[in-house]
Amino acid sequence: MAGLNQLIDSDVFRAFATYATVVLLKMMLMSLATAYFRLTRKVFANTEDAVIHSKGGDIKKYLRTDQDVERVRRCHLNDIENIIPFIGIGLLYALSNPDLFTALLHFRIFAGSRILHTVAYLTPLPQPSRGLTWLAGFGVTISMAYRVLQNVFYF
Amino acid sequence: MAGLNQLIDSDVFRAFATYATVVLLKMMLMSLATAYFRLTRKVFANTEDAVIHSKGGDIKKYLRTDQDVERVRRCHLNDIENIIPFIGIGLLYALSNPDLFTALLHFRIFAGSRILHTVAYLTPLPQPSRGLTWLAGFGVTISMAYRVLQNVFYF
Amino acid sequence: MAGLNQLIDSDVFRAFATYATVVLLKMMLMSLATAYFRLTRKVFANTEDAVIHSKGGDIKKYLRTDQDVERVRRCHLNDIENIIPFIGIGLLYALSNPDLFTALLHFRIFAGSRILHTVAYLTPLPQPSRGLTWLAGFGVTISMAYRVLQNVFYF
Repeated sequence: MAGLNQLIDSDVFRAFATYATVVLLKMMLMSLATAYFRLTRKVFANTEDAVIHSKGGDIKKYLRTDQDVERVRRCHLNDIENIIPFIGIGLLYALSNPDLFTALLHFRIFAGSRILHTVAYLTPLPQPSRGLTWLAGFGVTISMAYRVLQNVFYF
Repeated sequence: MAGLNQLIDSDVFRAFATYATVVLLKMMLMSLATAYFRLTRKVFANTEDAVIHSKGGDIKKYLRTDQDVERVRRCHLNDIENIIPFIGIGLLYALSNPDLFTALLHFRIFAGSRILHTVAYLTPLPQPSRGLTWLAGFGVTISMAYRVLQNVFYF
Repeated sequence: MAGLNQLIDSDVFRAFATYATVVLLKMMLMSLATAYFRLTRKVFANTEDAVIHSKGGDIKKYLRTDQDVERVRRCHLNDIENIIPFIGIGLLYALSNPDLFTALLHFRIFAGSRILHTVAYLTPLPQPSRGLTWLAGFGVTISMAYRVLQNVFYF
């Protein structure tokens, strides 16, 4: 399996694999954050979840929406909207034989921007903090997409 | 294209390709399930969809939210939240030359957990059924991420 | 890194990389469309966003839901639900050594269907326009999944 080993031996590909795994794990943390807020706020979306906490009482008061839970869910959805393009375009970018220094710069700015975006969203910090962290990640993905299209364009 | 054929000749990669396709097809089924519930319950989110079923009557009663439709949509979103990390991290894991038996164990538990999660969500089964099926899939992805970071770490 | 160059030298893989990048960029445009509608309609989900536009007045009237914003968000979510399977299954399909003509046909129909789907959703065009454009993309992904399973099946 020389092909596979060559992939894993490429520094750019290893860097992509590391940062892709880090941002995906960060995204998975949002599931735990949602569960944490649902359990501490006792706010559920499903009857079968609320019934455990109602202890035979009225379950309706546990089936509502809560500002903090909705905030975490919006943050999670924003991760999904931005991390999917990073993983897809980033993989193609890593295969397009870019300069290691440039590739690391892209991956590091993206990972940093998404971590800061979550901090800005959940604190919450006043705007434009969240807007700017989002823009940094968005710009990195656009820049990688430009490089991919320049290198592999086959329409 | 020796590189490509070597990829396809690898048993681990073929197993990943099979299970990744299966869980993505399962996720696509949720779109059909949502459409089915929307059509049978006559519950729509868009005016242009409701107007077909109102036959000149009041369309407002077709533009509402329905418990069953919302349940399928939450199940679909949970798939998205968990299957994206599996596809991204699983691809990198499959390229990190793992033992075939261990890799199959990871892929099978993940695929099984997501299918059981959907059953538990849509029936619905009493908790902790859904919670445990979710946790099994989550744990598999964390385990693959650990292996990827251990093998390719380049920060 | 012969393996990587062989991947990039493959016409099918280059075509996949081009169309995958195009549909992911199209999906990213939906974030900009949401931001555009939120800013022009002055409709926000977060207090820290609304406070900028309230200029010391009541922020509650900026924290609401708006039909146009919700429409763009549903369109974005539909992209996510359909483009994830295309990227995952399409990558495995591109690695399964398909005929170039057939592969291009798949990629072009998918990209076209998603662009037309957005047009049909945001105009909005009367049904079944949106339904048919969605179905075309869905069918392409099923067809690629069939080919992948046929070629790499390892259960």
